[in-house]
Amino acid sequence: MDAKQWSAGEARRRIRSGKWTGPTAGLAIAHAQANLVAVPREHAYDFLLFCQRNPRPCPLLEVLDAGKVEPDCARGADLRTDLPRYRIFRDGRLDAEPEDLEAAWRDDLVSFLIGCSFSFEAPLLAAGLEVRHLSEGRNVPMYRTARETRSAGPFRGPLVVSMRPFARTEVARAVEITSRYPRVHGGPVQVGEPGALGIADLARPDYGDAVTVKPGEVPLFWACGVTPQAALVAARLPFAVTHAPGHMLVTDLPCSGPFPGDLA
Amino acid sequence: MDAKQWSAGEARRRIRSGKWTGPTAGLAIAHAQANLVAVPREHAYDFLLFCQRNPRPCPLLEVLDAGKVEPDCARGADLRTDLPRYRIFRDGRLDAEPEDLEAAWRDDLVSFLIGCSFSFEAPLLAAGLEVRHLSEGRNVPMYRTARETRSAGPFRGPLVVSMRPFARTEVARAVEITSRYPRVHGGPVQVGEPGALGIADLARPDYGDAVTVKPGEVPLFWACGVTPQAALVAARLPFAVTHAPGHMLVTDLPCSGPFPGDLA
Repeated sequence: MDAKQWSAGEARRRIRSGKWTGPTAGLAIAHAQANLVAVPREHAYDFLLFCQRNPRPCPLLEVLDAGKVEPDCARGADLRTDLPRYRIFRDGRLDAEPEDLEAAWRDDLVSFLIGCSFSFEAPLLAAGLEVRHLSEGRNVPMYRTARETRSAGPFRGPLVVSMRPFARTEVARAVEITSRYPRVHGGPVQVGEPGALGIADLARPDYGDAVTVKPGEVPLFWACGVTPQAALVAARLPFAVTHAPGHMLVTDLPCSGPFPGDLA
Repeated sequence: MDAKQWSAGEARRRIRSGKWTGPTAGLAIAHAQANLVAVPREHAYDFLLFCQRNPRPCPLLEVLDAGKVEPDCARGADLRTDLPRYRIFRDGRLDAEPEDLEAAWRDDLVSFLIGCSFSFEAPLLAAGLEVRHLSEGRNVPMYRTARETRSAGPFRGPLVVSMRPFARTEVARAVEITSRYPRVHGGPVQVGEPGALGIADLARPDYGDAVTVKPGEVPLFWACGVTPQAALVAARLPFAVTHAPGHMLVTDLPCSGPFPGDLA
């Protein structure tokens, strides 16, 4: 079966068993994906506050109690094994990129699951729009910007954005569609002006892969869940783990919601 | 000048000077109002998590750093004096209802400002709908429900809702309008069935005042920022302060947003 059509559980099983090791864009596209950030309990308040103050890049889908590895939004999952690749940060430096967290996991870790813009790619495709990194079989390009997040405790740093190019005639439609999904970053934060975000060269993303931008196409930029990784570096936390950019958790949640808390 | 038309600063000055001591419904109606919860820093993580897990009753507009009393969303304001009435909780019990917090304030208090449904009453009025508690010059009626919130640490308890009655022909419009304002509770959580929420008698609200429900009218129920007060009681915190139900902070924010964080 086409990886696009996998159930969320099927996608996680393939990832857990090592049969899928790449980025998760285009996988099980009916389901929302999530960025992972896990920090020791003593830093959890400041990080939660950072997310509250920056809901556009950090829309929280779920915060697990310390030590827990099975999210409500992904029943039967194990956060230590069910993402294809992770990043381990020590003293604010990227220390390793393992394929599981079995050795690195600590029981004082609080895991934060943050909405991912991969989740609105199914509705873009359904509307007949091309999502370039999917057509080119690449990870989405992501860029650090000159725009600052709002700080919380030691967490601060640049807004990180993902980019998708569209024909001029499709820009309004792409904005309209993605704006319907605020829990997975919502509409773009910038349309057509990489310079306004301090991005010098679209061909050199800071994370993920470059994609083709055809003559006349307009780059659209969405707030990205990799933003906390820049903030982790700035905070120089002794220890923290995240997903590797583009290598997300596939949740059970339908892309279009409802998301946890949407209904009281 | 009509109190409806006051600027946010004017409303806060009148409240601070003791010239306005009642509920704030209908005051400076162009501006969003906010519920206040302030807890000692050691309990702030669990309370922030409670808000994250219950965004419908607890949509956070701002979280101040410990000890701070001037919110970004209400420049020049002082949270200790600029609400008409407060509640002081000790060991989970309501201990006092003072008109200011000058004696009770502690520098380890973290203040949470939570969106308030008074903020969507201006758009309801602008659409030609009657907001009953405003026409009757009363505080909005609020009820504890049989629906449980999602717990975080010691915080748990019932969802609290506010109620506004509308003619059958106006129900769809009232839902549509309020659904546009998720940062101030959004659309109703229940339409027309108080029993489904475990509310036995509309004439006996748990907070605020009863209002007339005319024959044939439908009661609509919105998640309410008084929900945390029930959770504070359940948590038996040694010390916490809140606004008195209906006696809110008038912020500088326009009712229709943007709210902090809406733009990255």
